Amino acid sequence: MPRPANPDTRAKLLEKGADLVSRVGFNATGVQEITAAAGVPKGSFYNYFESKEAFAVEVLGEYWGSVAEMYGPLLRDKETPPLQRVVNYFRGLADFHKRHRYAVGCLIGNMALEVTPSSADVRAKLVTVYREWSEALADCLREAQARKELASTKDTKQLAAALIDTFEGTVMRAKVERSGKPFDSFERSVLPCLLA
Amino acid sequence: MPRPANPDTRAKLLEKGADLVSRVGFNATGVQEITAAAGVPKGSFYNYFESKEAFAVEVLGEYWGSVAEMYGPLLRDKETPPLQRVVNYFRGLADFHKRHRYAVGCLIGNMALEVTPSSADVRAKLVTVYREWSEALADCLREAQARKELASTKDTKQLAAALIDTFEGTVMRAKVERSGKPFDSFERSVLPCLLA
Repeated sequence: MPRPANPDTRAKLLEKGADLVSRVGFNATGVQEITAAAGVPKGSFYNYFESKEAFAVEVLGEYWGSVAEMYGPLLRDKETPPLQRVVNYFRGLADFHKRHRYAVGCLIGNMALEVTPSSADVRAKLVTVYREWSEALADCLREAQARKELASTKDTKQLAAALIDTFEGTVMRAKVERSGKPFDSFERSVLPCLLA
Repeated sequence: MPRPANPDTRAKLLEKGADLVSRVGFNATGVQEITAAAGVPKGSFYNYFESKEAFAVEVLGEYWGSVAEMYGPLLRDKETPPLQRVVNYFRGLADFHKRHRYAVGCLIGNMALEVTPSSADVRAKLVTVYREWSEALADCLREAQARKELASTKDTKQLAAALIDTFEGTVMRAKVERSGKPFDSFERSVLPCLLA
């Protein structure tokens, strides 16, 4: 594979491709549509990505990177008590979905359900994303334990995983109902229960 | 649309189509592949279904119907205390995923994430499925309240929704990790917490 000639083209392919994948799914998005959306010749796709799967791994990395950059600081905000940070964090993520009118879902969840059966690389990337996501939450939960906000007997790793799973299921329901109500319910009943 | 001539052909289209949709997703499954898998001429598809979306609605109905038939009785088993029935129910569903080696996911969740953006009919069907699923669980939770197993202050409808959302997120993670560990964690930590 030749070295990418133009980082702008690469970025555009990733951006337009992520849009398409979010809207119609990965399996239904062809390389031709991605290059057409980015306004570049079809053949150039393979100057930047070895395969559509390699592209999916990069799209996931970009998506997770931007989520972590936008909302990760909420979990590390030392001015705020740790459990409140967790609430603020999920409120931020819910707001992200609201701005997309609950129509797109979470690219991590979408890829998890659609792409893992066919791509070992995407699955491996998702395992990493899940681990990083869990660790960011578990760090904050451990701070909550240190400050006696959370029982020291709680397994923070398992709790972090449960928070993510519940949230991803909530995103799914919000997408079906095209409504923010599932997020309200998550914040009002599920979070307090899991964090008690 | 002419009246379906052969119910066996219709059933075979639904069965083979559901397999394909589970494995590669709905958007990437063409009518031609469905008819080829069922061993019938392509044109006959439209004798049985008005459109691919109408087909998706039927596939969902069949899937949900068989899940309800197989596992629903666990929620209504009068010999067992209601909260234990909820545990048995989700254990049954987890076992279903285990038998599929965690590779397929839940067709309800898959369709929720992949198909809702493009099909109002599928979205409407999913709203119905979610409602029926929630009601089946909420009925059992109300029995738990009547028997003082569950605090009468709990909103059973909201709790049922939270159980479903958490479970669907767990299915997602199990698919990524190709492992039953997320289900163990759901049963050991999340369920007791939500049902406390």
